[in-house]
Amino acid sequence: MADSLAAIREELSLANRILAHEGIVDAFGHISVRHPTDPGRFLISRHRAPELVSPQDILEYTLDTEPVHPTPAGWRHYGERVIHGCIFQARPDVMAVCHHHAPAMMPYAIARAAVVPVFHLGASMGLRVPFWDSRDDFGSTALVLTKPEEGRSLAKALGQGWMVLMGRHGATVAGTSIRQTVFRSIYSCKNAELQTQARLLGHVEALDAQEVELAAAYNLRPGPQERAWDYWAKRVQDAEAVVAAGKAALAKPASASASRPAAKAKKPAAKAKRRKR
Amino acid sequence: MADSLAAIREELSLANRILAHEGIVDAFGHISVRHPTDPGRFLISRHRAPELVSPQDILEYTLDTEPVHPTPAGWRHYGERVIHGCIFQARPDVMAVCHHHAPAMMPYAIARAAVVPVFHLGASMGLRVPFWDSRDDFGSTALVLTKPEEGRSLAKALGQGWMVLMGRHGATVAGTSIRQTVFRSIYSCKNAELQTQARLLGHVEALDAQEVELAAAYNLRPGPQERAWDYWAKRVQDAEAVVAAGKAALAKPASASASRPAAKAKKPAAKAKRRKR
Amino acid sequence: MADSLAAIREELSLANRILAHEGIVDAFGHISVRHPTDPGRFLISRHRAPELVSPQDILEYTLDTEPVHPTPAGWRHYGERVIHGCIFQARPDVMAVCHHHAPAMMPYAIARAAVVPVFHLGASMGLRVPFWDSRDDFGSTALVLTKPEEGRSLAKALGQGWMVLMGRHGATVAGTSIRQTVFRSIYSCKNAELQTQARLLGHVEALDAQEVELAAAYNLRPGPQERAWDYWAKRVQDAEAVVAAGKAALAKPASASASRPAAKAKKPAAKAKRRKR
Amino acid sequence: MADSLAAIREELSLANRILAHEGIVDAFGHISVRHPTDPGRFLISRHRAPELVSPQDILEYTLDTEPVHPTPAGWRHYGERVIHGCIFQARPDVMAVCHHHAPAMMPYAIARAAVVPVFHLGASMGLRVPFWDSRDDFGSTALVLTKPEEGRSLAKALGQGWMVLMGRHGATVAGTSIRQTVFRSIYSCKNAELQTQARLLGHVEALDAQEVELAAAYNLRPGPQERAWDYWAKRVQDAEAVVAAGKAALAKPASASASRPAAKAKKPAAKAKRRKR
Repeated sequence: MADSLAAIREELSLANRILAHEGIVDAFGHISVRHPTDPGRFLISRHRAPELVSPQDILEYTLDTEPVHPTPAGWRHYGERVIHGCIFQARPDVMAVCHHHAPAMMPYAIARAAVVPVFHLGASMGLRVPFWDSRDDFGSTALVLTKPEEGRSLAKALGQGWMVLMGRHGATVAGTSIRQTVFRSIYSCKNAELQTQARLLGHVEALDAQEVELAAAYNLRPGPQERAWDYWAKRVQDAEAVVAAGKAALAKPASASASRPAAKAKKPAAKAKRRKR
Repeated sequence: MADSLAAIREELSLANRILAHEGIVDAFGHISVRHPTDPGRFLISRHRAPELVSPQDILEYTLDTEPVHPTPAGWRHYGERVIHGCIFQARPDVMAVCHHHAPAMMPYAIARAAVVPVFHLGASMGLRVPFWDSRDDFGSTALVLTKPEEGRSLAKALGQGWMVLMGRHGATVAGTSIRQTVFRSIYSCKNAELQTQARLLGHVEALDAQEVELAAAYNLRPGPQERAWDYWAKRVQDAEAVVAAGKAALAKPASASASRPAAKAKKPAAKAKRRKR
Repeated sequence: MADSLAAIREELSLANRILAHEGIVDAFGHISVRHPTDPGRFLISRHRAPELVSPQDILEYTLDTEPVHPTPAGWRHYGERVIHGCIFQARPDVMAVCHHHAPAMMPYAIARAAVVPVFHLGASMGLRVPFWDSRDDFGSTALVLTKPEEGRSLAKALGQGWMVLMGRHGATVAGTSIRQTVFRSIYSCKNAELQTQARLLGHVEALDAQEVELAAAYNLRPGPQERAWDYWAKRVQDAEAVVAAGKAALAKPASASASRPAAKAKKPAAKAKRRKR
Repeated sequence: MADSLAAIREELSLANRILAHEGIVDAFGHISVRHPTDPGRFLISRHRAPELVSPQDILEYTLDTEPVHPTPAGWRHYGERVIHGCIFQARPDVMAVCHHHAPAMMPYAIARAAVVPVFHLGASMGLRVPFWDSRDDFGSTALVLTKPEEGRSLAKALGQGWMVLMGRHGATVAGTSIRQTVFRSIYSCKNAELQTQARLLGHVEALDAQEVELAAAYNLRPGPQERAWDYWAKRVQDAEAVVAAGKAALAKPASASASRPAAKAKKPAAKAKRRKR
C-alpha cells in the first residue's frame, strides 16, 4: 500500500508538471486523485503552481476537504479544493479531477459558446459539455469556489458528464484515472482551439453522437492512453533533465571552472565558433 | 543492402522526430517508407509517439499490413497502418506516406473548406486537395481507419494526388521520398495557416494552375529539398543533443558533484550573477 | 537599508527578466520601483532590453527624472522615464510602474477597443481601463513620451486607476509593489488575449462591477501573488541556469575537451544513439 | 580592411541566425550586405538555411550577381540573389537587403492588403509599402526571382522606399546597415501581426504621416538600434551556447562518463528528484 501511495504521489506530481508543460495550467489550476485504498479521501498538492509540484507536496484530504494530517509550517491549502471534494463525493466513478483556466478553453467560458467534439481525440470530453455559472446560484462572487455549496452546485452541473465549463472562470475535467483526466484535459483544449479556427473558416462540422461514442471508446483504451502519457512525460522530463543538469553544474564547488570564467564569457558561442576556423 | 536499410531506418526515425519537432504530429500521427529493395513491403514505427521513435522501433510490413517478422514482446502496431499499406498498393510511384492531425490543417478538415496553394512553397501539395469523409462509405465510425476497405477508400480519394483531407480527422500526405513527404507535410501546413490568416484579412489570392506547377517543380528539386531537410534536422538534433548531454550529466556516478548540490541549488542563476560582482 | 536596497535591485532586475520571459516586453519596455526609504526617488534600469537587466544596471532618479548619481561612462538613460516619474509624483500610493507594448494588449491600443475583465485573474486591472492618446494634447509626435508634460498628461489619464492604454503605442501599469505590478501586467495581457478570442466566438461576457472588486481583492492577497511570482521566477531562472551552465562549460580552459571535439561533433545526438545499440 | 571584412562576415552571419531565431526566416529567405569598401560588390551566404550560416559561408558577388571568387566544391548559390544585386544597383544608399516569407507578413502578400504602421516601432517600414506582383510583368511563373529583369522589376517597385510586398511570395526589406535592415524586418512583421489583430477587433488606427516620420527617426537612432540588436543577439547566442555545450559534452572521449550511462538513464529527472528526498 505504501508503495502504491508513493507511486500515486509520483504520478500526480508528474501530471501537475505535464499539465503545466502542455499549457493547460499556469500559476493557477490543480489536479487531484482519489486515495487508492480509501475512497473517502483524495490527494492534491499544497498551494503552489503545478509546475513546481513534487511528490512531497501532495497532501491528503477527506471528501469534506479537511486535511487528514497536520499541515507543515508555512504551507497553504488550495482555496478551491471544494471543487475536487464535492465531485469525488457526488461521483464514485470519478478517480481524478482537474480544474484549469487554459487559454484554449477560456474563450468558450467567456463567450458562453458550446464546445463540441470536432475530431476523434476531442470525443473524449463527451457529446455535450454542460455550462455552469456562479451567478445563477450565488450572484456576484469572486468567481473562485471556496464554499462547499459552491462545489456541490458545480458537481450537480457536471452530472454524469466528464467536463463542465465555468462562466468567466475556466473548466473542470473528471476521469477514471489521472492519465485519462490529463488526456481529456489536453485534448479537449486542442479540440477547442480547432473549433475556434474552423469557425473562422466559416463552418464547424461536429462529430455525430455515434462517432463521439465510438471515438471516445477507441481512444480511451490503454494503448492510446499510454502512448500519449509517455509522450507528454518525455517532453517535460527532458526539459527538467536539462535544467537539473544546468543547476547541478552551477552548484559545483569553486574549484571547478564553472563560476570564474562565466564573468568573462561575454560571447562564448561566437568564441567557440571562431576557435574552429 | 543491409547498410541501405539501416540508413533508411535512421532517416525514417529522424523524419518522425522532425515532424514532431515542427508541430505536425504530437502523440499521434505516423510516417512510413516503402522498403528500399522490396516494393511489396513498407517500414513504419511500432505503436508510439513519433517524438520517441528511434531506428530500432521501425517494423516491416507487407502491403496488406501484416508484420513480416515476429513482433517483440510488449510492442504494439499502429491501428491505422492500413492507410499506408493501401496507398502503397494503389500508387507504385509513392515511396513515403505521412498521416497527421496537425493543428494548422485540422480546421480545413473540420470546416470542409478547400485548402489551396497561396505561396510557392505550398504549391508542393498540388492545385487541388481532395476531401474524403469516412461517413460517405462507412457511416458513423470511430473515425480512425483500421480496416482494409477503409484504407482502400482513402487511397481511391487520394487518386493521383499527393495529399488528401479527412473530414473531422486529419490529412494524409504522400511523396516520392521521405524527405519530399516531410517537406510537403510541413509546407502544406504552413500554407494552411497563411490561408487562414489571409482569409481573416478579407481575400485569399491563390496561385494559378501554371504557378502551382512551376513552383512545385522548382521547390521539389534536390537543392531546396536538401536545404529544408538540413534545417529541420539541425533543429531537432540540436534539441536532442542538449537533452542527451543533460541526462548523461545527471547519470554520472555519485562521486561527481552533480547530484549532491542539486538539492541545495535553490537559485543558482541569481547566485552565479551575485558572484560576478 | 543597504540590504533592503540591494534586495530591491535584485527583485527589480528579476521583474525585468520575468516580464521579458513571459512576453510582455521585448527589446523595449521597462519597469520601475519607488525608492524603499525615499519616496521622492525611484529606481529603474539604465537604457537596455529588460532581458539583459541585472541588479548592477539599476539607476536612481528623482521624481523629476534627474539621475541622483553620476551616470557611468557609456551608459544611457531610458528616453521615456518621465512616464515613471510623473506617475510616482501624481500617485503616492503607487510603488511600481511598468510600461510595455505587449502583443496581447497592443491590438486594443490600435483599435481603440475597450479591454474589460473577462475572468477573475484579469479583474486585477480594474473595471475600466482609461484610454490616452498623445494626439489629444500634443498632436502628431514620435509617440514616445520624453517630456514632463507628456508624462503628466498620461498620469492624469491614469487617474486613480491601475492601468492606462496608450493609442498606437502601448500600455502603462501601476501597482503597490513590484510583484503586484508584474501580476497585473501579465494577467491583463492574458485577459486581452482571451477577450479577443471570445469576441471571435461572437460574444464577450465581462465580469460585473462586484465580481471585479471581489476577484481583484481575492487574487491580490499575498497567497496568490506569491504563488504566481514563484512560478514566473522559476521559469526564467531555470532558463537562465541552463544558459549560464552552457556558457561556463564553453569558457573552460582548453585542457578540457569542451572546445576541441566541438569542431568534429557534426551529429552528436545521432552518434550517441548509435552507440547505445 | 581584412579586419573590417571579417567583422562584417561575422555580423552578417549573426544577422542570419537572429532572423531565424526571431521567426522571420525558416529554411528559406536570406540577407545580404554591400561590400564595406567596394560598393560594386555584395556579400551573402551560400545556399543554405539562415540558421546554419556561419562567417565561412559568406560569398562575394558583383552587383550582376556573378561570384567574385571560385565556388568551393559542393556549394550552391541562392537562386534569388538577383533580388539583392538589383536593389544594390538601383539604390546606392541601400547597404543591406533581406528577403523573407515571414508568417506574420505573408497574409498581406496573399490578401493584397495594405500593411500600415500601427505603432511607433512599425514606423520604420515607412508610410506606404508598395505591392509588387510577378504576374504583372512576367505572367505565371514559379514565383521565385531568378532572372535579372525580375530583380530589376522588383527594385523599380521598391522605388525610394524601404520595403516591398511580393504577391503570393513574401517581402523584401532594405536598410542603410545590417542592423537597421534586421530591425525593420522584425518590427514590420510585428506591426503586421498587430494590425491583423486590431482588424479582428474591428478598427485599425494607423499612424499619420508626421507620426510615421517622427517615430521612424526616433527609433532608427543608434540608441534604440543597438538596444534591439543586443537583445536579439543575446537570445540567439544564449541558445547557441547551450547547444554548443551539449554537443561538446557528448563529443567527450569514452573515458568520460557521458556516453556510457546515457543508455541506462531512462528517467534521470525523476531519479534526481528521488535522490533528494
